[in-house]
Amino acid sequence: MMDSKAMCNRLVIRLGWVFGLLCAISIQGEAQEEAGWSKRDSVMVAEIHGHVLGSGQCYEDLRVLCKDIGARLSGSDEADDAILWGGQTLSSIGVGAVRMQPVVVPHWQRGETEKAWMRVDGGAPEPLRISALGGSIGTDGPLEAEVAMFKNFDALDSLGAEGVAGKMVFFNRPMDPLMINAGSAYGGAYEQRSKGAVEAAAHGGVGALVRSLTHALDTFPHTGGMRYDDEVRKVPSAAVSTVDARRIAQLLKDGREVRVGMDMGCALFDDKSQANVIAEWKGTEFPDRYIVVGGHLDSWDIGEGAHDDGAGIVQSIEVMRTLHALGYAPRHTLRVVLFINEENGNNGGKTYALRARERGEWHVAAVESDAGGDAPRGFSIDASDSATAAVRSWREDFTGYGVGEMRRGGAGVDIGPLKKEMPAGKRPLMVGLRPNSQRYFDYHHSDRDIFENVHERELKLGAAALTSMVYLLDQLDYDTLD
Amino acid sequence: MMDSKAMCNRLVIRLGWVFGLLCAISIQGEAQEEAGWSKRDSVMVAEIHGHVLGSGQCYEDLRVLCKDIGARLSGSDEADDAILWGGQTLSSIGVGAVRMQPVVVPHWQRGETEKAWMRVDGGAPEPLRISALGGSIGTDGPLEAEVAMFKNFDALDSLGAEGVAGKMVFFNRPMDPLMINAGSAYGGAYEQRSKGAVEAAAHGGVGALVRSLTHALDTFPHTGGMRYDDEVRKVPSAAVSTVDARRIAQLLKDGREVRVGMDMGCALFDDKSQANVIAEWKGTEFPDRYIVVGGHLDSWDIGEGAHDDGAGIVQSIEVMRTLHALGYAPRHTLRVVLFINEENGNNGGKTYALRARERGEWHVAAVESDAGGDAPRGFSIDASDSATAAVRSWREDFTGYGVGEMRRGGAGVDIGPLKKEMPAGKRPLMVGLRPNSQRYFDYHHSDRDIFENVHERELKLGAAALTSMVYLLDQLDYDTLD
Repeated sequence: MMDSKAMCNRLVIRLGWVFGLLCAISIQGEAQEEAGWSKRDSVMVAEIHGHVLGSGQCYEDLRVLCKDIGARLSGSDEADDAILWGGQTLSSIGVGAVRMQPVVVPHWQRGETEKAWMRVDGGAPEPLRISALGGSIGTDGPLEAEVAMFKNFDALDSLGAEGVAGKMVFFNRPMDPLMINAGSAYGGAYEQRSKGAVEAAAHGGVGALVRSLTHALDTFPHTGGMRYDDEVRKVPSAAVSTVDARRIAQLLKDGREVRVGMDMGCALFDDKSQANVIAEWKGTEFPDRYIVVGGHLDSWDIGEGAHDDGAGIVQSIEVMRTLHALGYAPRHTLRVVLFINEENGNNGGKTYALRARERGEWHVAAVESDAGGDAPRGFSIDASDSATAAVRSWREDFTGYGVGEMRRGGAGVDIGPLKKEMPAGKRPLMVGLRPNSQRYFDYHHSDRDIFENVHERELKLGAAALTSMVYLLDQLDYDTLD
Repeated sequence: MMDSKAMCNRLVIRLGWVFGLLCAISIQGEAQEEAGWSKRDSVMVAEIHGHVLGSGQCYEDLRVLCKDIGARLSGSDEADDAILWGGQTLSSIGVGAVRMQPVVVPHWQRGETEKAWMRVDGGAPEPLRISALGGSIGTDGPLEAEVAMFKNFDALDSLGAEGVAGKMVFFNRPMDPLMINAGSAYGGAYEQRSKGAVEAAAHGGVGALVRSLTHALDTFPHTGGMRYDDEVRKVPSAAVSTVDARRIAQLLKDGREVRVGMDMGCALFDDKSQANVIAEWKGTEFPDRYIVVGGHLDSWDIGEGAHDDGAGIVQSIEVMRTLHALGYAPRHTLRVVLFINEENGNNGGKTYALRARERGEWHVAAVESDAGGDAPRGFSIDASDSATAAVRSWREDFTGYGVGEMRRGGAGVDIGPLKKEMPAGKRPLMVGLRPNSQRYFDYHHSDRDIFENVHERELKLGAAALTSMVYLLDQLDYDTLD
């Protein structure tokens, strides 16, 4: 007969043993969740950062993409040039096969004519700087109308079907300055640009003028995509700078009559065939399981598409270049994909996902960089609970590299369709690189999105973080993640 | 007699009770460690961010400080102007008393003459842009000598006492590009600037030329402080840009003879009396316990001292303005201190600490912002284990505001002496705001440190983070922290 003390001791020992077993079972399944990085992973991530910061080529790649090619809207000759450049640059790494995946893209052009003016109280026209929104119809000659200002669609709806008949509808809701994340503030103002023309026309308006989506108080119109609705008459739509938006708003508040005129030659032409550029590096253990990393090669037709998304393109290329330079052989097949047409259709992302589904390819993970080239801060994760936990377990280790912010959220527009097209159980673990968001919209879709506004070290830190993430995802055991 | 199963159950219950008790004890002592922010704290921090982002004045304050006053080296008339401005600005908040605390500061001046040139293989002189290091003696007329290049002091030591007799010693160790944190890279190259002249002279050199401490490859010399040693002959010392440093290094590697000449009129004049500006807001519960928040009002004499440390000054002022605007009454006495003379002596910080010790003031916490106005990422903590744990318990909550990085480390130069002067047990919990470090040294101590290179939203986010930290520190119970 044991006394109670001896019994307690034995019990404690047993409890310890049971706890150990539970830990062992847990660790076996998802070592990463408990332990963070292994020593080998830590060494590899340090080497990745050392290589990219010391001899990375992404900044020089970006210079070439921005300065030798420049803006590259889907359907343009420059987009063709960028596709060729992307293929050559990926081929020059010397690992895996590079191919072009045909994608049908829209072909919208701004045209030669793009001017605007405003008249206050019937006075002489003053020049007004605008940028036609991507996809807008032209004006078919000068179009001038009185301005009616709205902050949201509800205010417009309250006026009824012909509430703004004959007017130029001006949507002037700023991005919310109180939101910490600038991307969230963009999301909250986005519909003015994407649906403003439809809402204006539905209430009798002759055109839509949209406040640029940026926190910056600047004189640059920031363009971007807009859509029409087959049920609603098409009216032209253009962005004005935040400085001009403030001025017009003040005049209207002061009771002045403001008329805005525009003459835009933009038009939609026949679709064109362009391509996603795909570099494929066969996996040593799971050649028929894919990890994709990419961004989008197309940009808007103003600026140079440096942050959006030249940065993501050159960072994605750097992933393969770096892993190859370090003598790494991926376990899963690694694909770098330079998607086309994210800005006005996402046909690159959709086509890629459709082809992957047709071929029954299991994409275990998909990673995107399309939030600019500023200092990386972490990653957004769009995945199952177990996969999210596996990635989040790396948080402490990533904090040492300045990228410890890990949140659930959308990972990227280009890889988005992969989630939709794949059957349940075969949806990829999706991760998006998340840089500092505060400056991104200062540049976004404007003449300011140029190479000079990308910081070399910050771009490289992003490339190193992206490469580290792809490496770590390649180390995961996807049979144990649901 | 209990059977073993019943005994186990009782034991488990007891263990649970003991565990609960331990938790309760722990929570009682340091509620923050377990619970993060209270609901009231969360509301307050949200209000602070809303107020600063929506109606903060720190960016406009910075414009005035940079554009109306500009560079403000200790001892200069501009530093006097800045002290007056600081006092007026703090007074205008309308809470508490503002006073000037006299501080004796060195008075070094660059002088009218500052030029340099280089000759390659005895050719004609080419202009070379330099910036005398702060504290350097002048050259007393032109001084030209052959350049001898070194990456570290060991290499110089290996040549012996007269190893560089008659030479211009060129220290060309770059900031390590492989370090993730730019501040750490600065720390690793700093001694070249601070001790280069002493080391050069100790080996027979006639002057020291120092590669600018920046990751940027630019044409701006970045100045900064240097020190002499009473035992070693004084020789003049100046910074060259990283672009010029590369060029000189390449010439020397190619076996060319490079001579550098300089003519510098800089000199040290008699000490002057200037002041720390102190605004004091009496605490409601602990009027004789102090929380200090500040930065330094002086700057180098080139650029505008926008990031270093105009940002910290206007953010510290914003702390008091914001808490007052929100109707808050601090529990502890809150002092905003605009320290003088951080850059070349730290006499402001030393004087403040000495006076505090003389008066027996218990500074429960000290907070500094002196790492630039870029996007805030977190805080460094210099405190006891229990105090560090209390602050680190806020990490998850702060992550929502983008400032979740919490590391132990130095909190700031100005508040540093408080730690040294205070008796054990009365040392303040010290916290430093930590913004993104990647761009800071691009501007640091150069003509590029101007208002235009500070981002309004990022500056305001830093001010809101700083205000939130001060508020939360005011909520702590310092009798329970060791």
